Amino acid sequence: MDSSSVAPVPELAPIAEFDKTPPTPPHDELPMDDLPPPPSAPVLPDDEKKRHRSNSYEEEEGEWGCGSWFEYALVVTLASVLLVGSLALTLFWVLYYREGFSWNENPKLQFNLHPVLMVAGFITFSGFSILLYRICRCCRRLYVKLFHTIFHALAVPCVVVGFLAVLDSHNLATPPIPNFYSLHSWLGFITMGLFAIQFVVGFFSFLVLLCCDSATASFRAALVPIHAAFGLTTLMLAIATCLTGLTEKAVFTLGPQYSDFIEEGVVINALGVSLAALAIVVVYIVTRDKFRVSPMHNQVFIRASADL
Amino acid sequence: MDSSSVAPVPELAPIAEFDKTPPTPPHDELPMDDLPPPPSAPVLPDDEKKRHRSNSYEEEEGEWGCGSWFEYALVVTLASVLLVGSLALTLFWVLYYREGFSWNENPKLQFNLHPVLMVAGFITFSGFSILLYRICRCCRRLYVKLFHTIFHALAVPCVVVGFLAVLDSHNLATPPIPNFYSLHSWLGFITMGLFAIQFVVGFFSFLVLLCCDSATASFRAALVPIHAAFGLTTLMLAIATCLTGLTEKAVFTLGPQYSDFIEEGVVINALGVSLAALAIVVVYIVTRDKFRVSPMHNQVFIRASADL
Repeated sequence: MDSSSVAPVPELAPIAEFDKTPPTPPHDELPMDDLPPPPSAPVLPDDEKKRHRSNSYEEEEGEWGCGSWFEYALVVTLASVLLVGSLALTLFWVLYYREGFSWNENPKLQFNLHPVLMVAGFITFSGFSILLYRICRCCRRLYVKLFHTIFHALAVPCVVVGFLAVLDSHNLATPPIPNFYSLHSWLGFITMGLFAIQFVVGFFSFLVLLCCDSATASFRAALVPIHAAFGLTTLMLAIATCLTGLTEKAVFTLGPQYSDFIEEGVVINALGVSLAALAIVVVYIVTRDKFRVSPMHNQVFIRASADL
Repeated sequence: MDSSSVAPVPELAPIAEFDKTPPTPPHDELPMDDLPPPPSAPVLPDDEKKRHRSNSYEEEEGEWGCGSWFEYALVVTLASVLLVGSLALTLFWVLYYREGFSWNENPKLQFNLHPVLMVAGFITFSGFSILLYRICRCCRRLYVKLFHTIFHALAVPCVVVGFLAVLDSHNLATPPIPNFYSLHSWLGFITMGLFAIQFVVGFFSFLVLLCCDSATASFRAALVPIHAAFGLTTLMLAIATCLTGLTEKAVFTLGPQYSDFIEEGVVINALGVSLAALAIVVVYIVTRDKFRVSPMHNQVFIRASADL
């Protein structure tokens, strides 16, 4: 379905000027969803429309100008490149400078699974999972929810194996390396806890509770902004935890060489900076109101937001 | 002005039910602002109002229930405690474990100015400056803007002196410590750059351009969400930079003792965790739509958002 088939809703039109009985959209214009259709465009005279537009750089949903589309395409592409690029750079670092992977038989190489799997789970999968709500502008909302769950479900084994890998590699090292003493590990615990709570609450509230749809609609609607805020927070915390982990690893592994600007140190720093850039771009995309898919749809019909 | 004097605007009422000509609020109910008054409440029958409220856990602005006020008071108090508490904990750490401050005459103690001043500038002042837009619910918007600028202006000397302190302490140490090689310093550079851009753009766009108010209104309105998103991003980056700095300092200064859970290590970790908690609470407050002051006010009358 093309986004143009969703009836546009002006963001800045004064309430008093909304038409009292908006015409029902023709059947073929109904959204591909089980939700009530969005409100159709209020009937405004042409010169009124022009005045509204000239008052604002924010075009209507479905009527974005060239600038808005360019901005949207730029930040979404940048976010996607950074999400995949961070994982690729972590893989490159581990394979090129840290001698690749192993399991129990070589604790030093077993450790290398930790950064790769944590970046894959907490950053790449979780990041795409969040961005789905801004990227999939024309899909049925239920499908977006399912893909959101699938991406997070893919993150779970990555996080679990990544966590076991670092525990094992610490315990099997000679001498064993102590666990859970550093700021990185404390932050990692908080991030994993938040991730688990978000996953369980999200799964039960937004998928399982759909079985008694109408009875739980207002509860689910109230939970949406909390789930969204904590989801963004979990990603930010995950990025902060990665940055402390990279700092620890660089200081421990490279030692005084780190300050000589050696190649590996620069690669680690570049990875850290790309993760920080990712944080900037994702916060920008998520907090930018005009990138929301049909915001009025959610505001006007409670089922729309309850259906997240 | 009490928030109840702002005419409530239902968030979930279908557009078709808005009254075409809302009554003008009485003169004593006008906001203490130079902006147009917010739209008054649409006239809905009593049973309609009840139906709307029973459909949602989100009460109307100015009609928050006990739960909403409790949630608001809780998170704002928590954020304030964390903003002040982080600075207090940094001061305690530096004074109790790191022997306090000095300037050129003792590079080791001169370094101690760096964490304290950076936390004061980038976290405490900047954090309160952002929260002002959620805390000051009844002030004239121009005053909020002025205090927002003043808090950021207070952060500037902290950041500058904090930066000079670490440069000086590195250069004067024997042997000199190299600069700008670590992930912490790279992230610090990006954070300072973003902070400077935000400050200059914010100062000129939202204060200086007020001299030609009407001509720049739509430009300023378009800039508001970008300035807000990058402001939140700068705070998150500042927190991430602090976390990497704390990790570096703990590893360099405490060495192998760090893994023995010594007191100073636990204090550093607690400081890091309180900064991470601050990030969670601030993102929650800022992204929670219902904590916005009169959102419909901004949406309907462009001057309201242009006046940020």
